[in-house]
Amino acid sequence: MESQANFVRGDHTLKVPMSLFAENRARLVARLRANPKVTKAGSFVLLQGGVDVPFNDTDVDWPFRQESFFQWCFGVEEPGCYGALDLDSGAALLFFPRLPAEYATWMGRLSSLEEFRQRYAVEETHYVDQIAEVLKSKSAKLLHTLHGVNSDSGLTSKEATFEGIDKFEVNNEILYPEICECRVIKTPKEIEVLRYVVKVSSDAHKSVMRTVRPGLAEFQAEAAFQHYAYSVGGCRYVSYTCICGSGCNAAILHYGHAGAPNNKVLKDGDMCLFDMGGNYCGYAADITCSFPANGKFTDDQKIVYNAVLDARNAVMNAAKPGVLWTDMHLLANRVMLEALKKGGLLQGDVRDMIKAGLNAVFQPHGLGHFLGLDVHDVGGYLPNHPARSKEPGLNKLRTARPLMAGMVLTIEPGCYFIDWLLDKARENKEQSKFIVWETLSRFRGTGGVRIEDDVLITETGTENLTIVPRTVEEIETWMAPNREKLQLPQEKLCV
Amino acid sequence: MESQANFVRGDHTLKVPMSLFAENRARLVARLRANPKVTKAGSFVLLQGGVDVPFNDTDVDWPFRQESFFQWCFGVEEPGCYGALDLDSGAALLFFPRLPAEYATWMGRLSSLEEFRQRYAVEETHYVDQIAEVLKSKSAKLLHTLHGVNSDSGLTSKEATFEGIDKFEVNNEILYPEICECRVIKTPKEIEVLRYVVKVSSDAHKSVMRTVRPGLAEFQAEAAFQHYAYSVGGCRYVSYTCICGSGCNAAILHYGHAGAPNNKVLKDGDMCLFDMGGNYCGYAADITCSFPANGKFTDDQKIVYNAVLDARNAVMNAAKPGVLWTDMHLLANRVMLEALKKGGLLQGDVRDMIKAGLNAVFQPHGLGHFLGLDVHDVGGYLPNHPARSKEPGLNKLRTARPLMAGMVLTIEPGCYFIDWLLDKARENKEQSKFIVWETLSRFRGTGGVRIEDDVLITETGTENLTIVPRTVEEIETWMAPNREKLQLPQEKLCV
Repeated sequence: MESQANFVRGDHTLKVPMSLFAENRARLVARLRANPKVTKAGSFVLLQGGVDVPFNDTDVDWPFRQESFFQWCFGVEEPGCYGALDLDSGAALLFFPRLPAEYATWMGRLSSLEEFRQRYAVEETHYVDQIAEVLKSKSAKLLHTLHGVNSDSGLTSKEATFEGIDKFEVNNEILYPEICECRVIKTPKEIEVLRYVVKVSSDAHKSVMRTVRPGLAEFQAEAAFQHYAYSVGGCRYVSYTCICGSGCNAAILHYGHAGAPNNKVLKDGDMCLFDMGGNYCGYAADITCSFPANGKFTDDQKIVYNAVLDARNAVMNAAKPGVLWTDMHLLANRVMLEALKKGGLLQGDVRDMIKAGLNAVFQPHGLGHFLGLDVHDVGGYLPNHPARSKEPGLNKLRTARPLMAGMVLTIEPGCYFIDWLLDKARENKEQSKFIVWETLSRFRGTGGVRIEDDVLITETGTENLTIVPRTVEEIETWMAPNREKLQLPQEKLCV
Repeated sequence: MESQANFVRGDHTLKVPMSLFAENRARLVARLRANPKVTKAGSFVLLQGGVDVPFNDTDVDWPFRQESFFQWCFGVEEPGCYGALDLDSGAALLFFPRLPAEYATWMGRLSSLEEFRQRYAVEETHYVDQIAEVLKSKSAKLLHTLHGVNSDSGLTSKEATFEGIDKFEVNNEILYPEICECRVIKTPKEIEVLRYVVKVSSDAHKSVMRTVRPGLAEFQAEAAFQHYAYSVGGCRYVSYTCICGSGCNAAILHYGHAGAPNNKVLKDGDMCLFDMGGNYCGYAADITCSFPANGKFTDDQKIVYNAVLDARNAVMNAAKPGVLWTDMHLLANRVMLEALKKGGLLQGDVRDMIKAGLNAVFQPHGLGHFLGLDVHDVGGYLPNHPARSKEPGLNKLRTARPLMAGMVLTIEPGCYFIDWLLDKARENKEQSKFIVWETLSRFRGTGGVRIEDDVLITETGTENLTIVPRTVEEIETWMAPNREKLQLPQEKLCV
């Protein structure tokens, strides 16, 4: 059922066809039908959409964004909905809250069920208070509901429930791994949305790089990124809290949180590590750019930056279907440690360093993660796939799976000078001997570098969706106009 | 205990002294001591701060903002804290989560208790797992916890609980109305923060007005407002979802919600109704500007705009301590209906119109509300104050209290052409006869106008904290440069 219905913002942003979601549903239905445990006629998938979440006890809600599984299936923008898939016919049914007439004053003219049906291009629409009745009329017997643990958060998905669900048999074991598996592999239409949101976010990073200069507050970069992504790209939200670390703050992996809210002023000589990504139609970008605040690398900054860039290039060239993600992580570690050794910070055999866990001292996070409707997208650790490793560094990986065409992942090696990890390493004889402490002392307090790209695994290798200046030369060239402007009197600090 | 501790963002935003919160605490302690129901020695106030809220089952949290009562008392930026006030000594104690050492990798160097003590300028700091032990050591017997219903949301505040609370007597009835009463009257230091956030938000509105033109998408105004408020003013968040209605959307009171996300393109001839406010240090601004998208009012637009402006001016001149807010609402209604009558839209006696409820057809919301840490600030309907009216329009008011010096409220009369309300009015003989339907038909579909200012009640009257162009002439003059730019070729739509 192809239709002209689209998700769009204004005239100048990407039109996302509702057929994207129809294709997702068709994939899920096909997968469930092929599952030997799904045999019963009268089986339906039943999902509950996201609801408005109030800010504490006030009448202000957090800005509503659709729950990701529901978004993946239906692309519905409104809160409080349910959706069902008839596994016999493949038909999709949406259920909307029945709003009182007076809501029109606050919400605008209330859409009819037929208008909703056309907007979301589904077979049927009803009200939420009709779910039991409608499903009964279709001889539904068994409802597959969502119940599973997110391997990144440890939180359990919200299982659908409605008045009258007790009249149906419910199975909450089959759906979760199957829908997660579907979400791991992106369709061409999903890839088009990801390509768009990553391009917009790339351009937003480039725009930020052009405005950065010593004297700017970190949060002004956050503000500039959000503005570009929204105004130009239609990304109302970012996919996660912006990390805008400068100087020593670049060594704080989740800098930008409430207790450290991007409020340092950039100094001449600082490196910046800006990790920001827009969100469009639910789909996430997740990009990190690292560069000098003044637009010109020092020799020491080049050593660290190029060590990370070498690691990123090695992975970008090696990743392809069949390759283990854990191997890519170790490859990145090896290449980076080799470069740090060449730069004089480390000594000894790199393989021995990794055995001693030194890789996790300088990069205490995984190489990257699935990317999709969630910034840490689902499916990293599912039944019948490799389990989480216990090795240092590898244990932080959000998946250990072999790569497959259609996966989208971040590749994000990093090198950080984190005091408490370095202090621990100094006390650890097995690690300490590899570090040239006198040289390292030059780098302490300078923060760190991360290079994060959003990458599609193709049949033959990788396609980098991220388009930003990456080499030292590219960055210095891109930021050269800033340096010229620096010579002029600055009237305002704001971007 | 005055200290040098401040809330600040970068170098260019307002420094908010922690003594603001110390003064709030002192006011609360004095008020509770004066309460005849509080007699027992060993009484403490115990508040639980806000916690991180995950986005569904993912590992992404909503951006953390402190819970408002806790913010009012302590100004603490971190999630997961508790605070106590010793009613005997007046001392303030803060309790922070005890974080594992490895959190330093993600959060940055962990602050010591002494660092927290100095940052928030309180008498003592401890860990959350020590609450029972610390309170016992101070011979605490009775804990006053927060338990009350927010009169705007109908939701109940989150009552503090901790391991070991069963060892104390708990009273959850006294605190809520007392702390709400304190929050209703703003101190000079609170007023300074409100003045700042309202000024920043005023300037952001002015900046948006300068960039608006036909062809722009509504959300580009939202993006521009947020950018200005954050980059220039340090307002990381807005206080509520931006309402950027143009044309017919200006008649949708909560336009901008998930189902109608500011995604229409502005047309020549549209009126804009932009309701947006920044948030700084928890304190909210809430400003609405209405103006023509092309910068020039038509005669019909002037009729409606000036009707609302007359209402706003009448209230601004009449409001002062002792005056009933309900009377101000009716004053605004009367003045506006009178002006609409003069403009030819209405006929008959204005007092009779109000008896028939016509005021609530054209302005189906209250005149305004308290403003503070919540955009609809607490204290509207407390015990020993006037209860909510049942009259049309008045029943929408968020408070019915007589005004007092130190209150901060919005004054926000509006006039809207809302189809379903007009259709109802047409069927209602008592209302229909007042409307000149032929004239009104010219205005249907044109949206509406709201003028919303943030106003301090002084000893003698009002002080408008909002500084934006308000008269037709001021607006046309301010937007004149846009009209000149309109003659030039436009390369990009983005603000």
